[in-house]
Amino acid sequence: MRITIIGSGNVSTHMAAAFKNAGHRIVQVYSRDLQKAWLLAYHVGAEAVDHLDHILPDTDLFVIAIKDDAIAQVARALAVHNKLMVHTSGATDLDTLIAFTANAGVFYPLQTFSKVREVSFRSVPLCLEGGNDEILAQLKELAYTISNNVYAVSSAQRRVLHLAAVFACNFPNYLYNTARQVLARNQMDFEMLRPLILETALKVQEQMPGEVQTGPAVRNDTGTMAAHLQMLNDTPLLQDIYTLLSQGIIKNNNEISANG
Amino acid sequence: MRITIIGSGNVSTHMAAAFKNAGHRIVQVYSRDLQKAWLLAYHVGAEAVDHLDHILPDTDLFVIAIKDDAIAQVARALAVHNKLMVHTSGATDLDTLIAFTANAGVFYPLQTFSKVREVSFRSVPLCLEGGNDEILAQLKELAYTISNNVYAVSSAQRRVLHLAAVFACNFPNYLYNTARQVLARNQMDFEMLRPLILETALKVQEQMPGEVQTGPAVRNDTGTMAAHLQMLNDTPLLQDIYTLLSQGIIKNNNEISANG
Repeated sequence: MRITIIGSGNVSTHMAAAFKNAGHRIVQVYSRDLQKAWLLAYHVGAEAVDHLDHILPDTDLFVIAIKDDAIAQVARALAVHNKLMVHTSGATDLDTLIAFTANAGVFYPLQTFSKVREVSFRSVPLCLEGGNDEILAQLKELAYTISNNVYAVSSAQRRVLHLAAVFACNFPNYLYNTARQVLARNQMDFEMLRPLILETALKVQEQMPGEVQTGPAVRNDTGTMAAHLQMLNDTPLLQDIYTLLSQGIIKNNNEISANG
Repeated sequence: MRITIIGSGNVSTHMAAAFKNAGHRIVQVYSRDLQKAWLLAYHVGAEAVDHLDHILPDTDLFVIAIKDDAIAQVARALAVHNKLMVHTSGATDLDTLIAFTANAGVFYPLQTFSKVREVSFRSVPLCLEGGNDEILAQLKELAYTISNNVYAVSSAQRRVLHLAAVFACNFPNYLYNTARQVLARNQMDFEMLRPLILETALKVQEQMPGEVQTGPAVRNDTGTMAAHLQMLNDTPLLQDIYTLLSQGIIKNNNEISANG
């Protein structure tokens, strides 16, 4: 397919590379920041543009991978070309595009990307939605050229997935950073925690997280929890977080016990 | 070395296997539950016992890997043999053993273990403390036979590490489970989130978590955060957790901005 990439952030970068590697042709890369457009366009052999007016109609697909609140405005501008367009947002309904064209879909990669780390795209779950069955079928065919994990997901389901992803990715990363801060205040290195962090994620690749919960809260070890809260005395926000997450673990545990 | 394992839980199981594989001899495995003692003893070619009176003095090291609040009582009973003893607890001071014998140390593996998953022990950070320099040197020698990551860590530092491990492991696992619950309430499968969870942990193996934070909070995307809170309307605890963790992310972000 001939594909035009709108955006030059993490999702655009990884997805453009995946499409290119799968043999698709990246026609243009658009970014308001021409230098960013250039950088990505250079890597995937495309033309860089920084004005929506300069976008060529000779393409098969517009992939809109930009900030959620800018999607509608860009979709409006691209709709004149009457080509298939998809956005890549977990938190944006398909209707945001349908408002401007029926020839629309969603191509949401359920993964966290950073520019410096390569991601194996074949294991990235791609969550697809189409304005009609034909569009969905077309997107599925495209998706399987870059990933083995392809799902049809409605806008309502995608909102749930996006919320779940905040709990599964954004919040754990914040807690990693909190752990780093706790060590740094005591002149200890984050390096010591890396094997633990990795193993915690590896464990739930085969098991369910509820079955492998460890730590003072699940043991209801009130002495250790009190000592930990004491150590967090000068950071009330971390004390609150510690208390609330421990409550959550204890609550889950009690519910499991109550259910047998 | 001749090693006697006190306990038959996750830490005992993995550590006994690592010692055995490194060529040490496991003399006995003690557990109050004789069947559990048998199971582990069978795997490492040791004798199983369920009474402290039956523990043989012909050993070089007692490894006490049991519940924190039972350590003192067992240490008191073992002290009569006047052999080196270590505990494996992150939350227990060395003094708990020193109260009964000077011939004591700590051998704390900073890792999460589950019985069904094998852990590569060579990458497990082992945090050691000795009642004196000679003991520490002896424990280091032993530690390097099973791991490449060996650290000398004081009791005060170990308390900090244990707290950091709660943030780096126990709490993220609870959030994985929360994500699973959010999906399950909407008939979606946890399987979809596994690549995201793994990549989130892989990212911080080389980068620092503060540098790779993603999600609505770090973008200060108030619209998405409000929508997420709305979706959690029937679970006030999860709403509180969402709010607090988002506050933490925003606070970190503001501090980074303020510092340039």
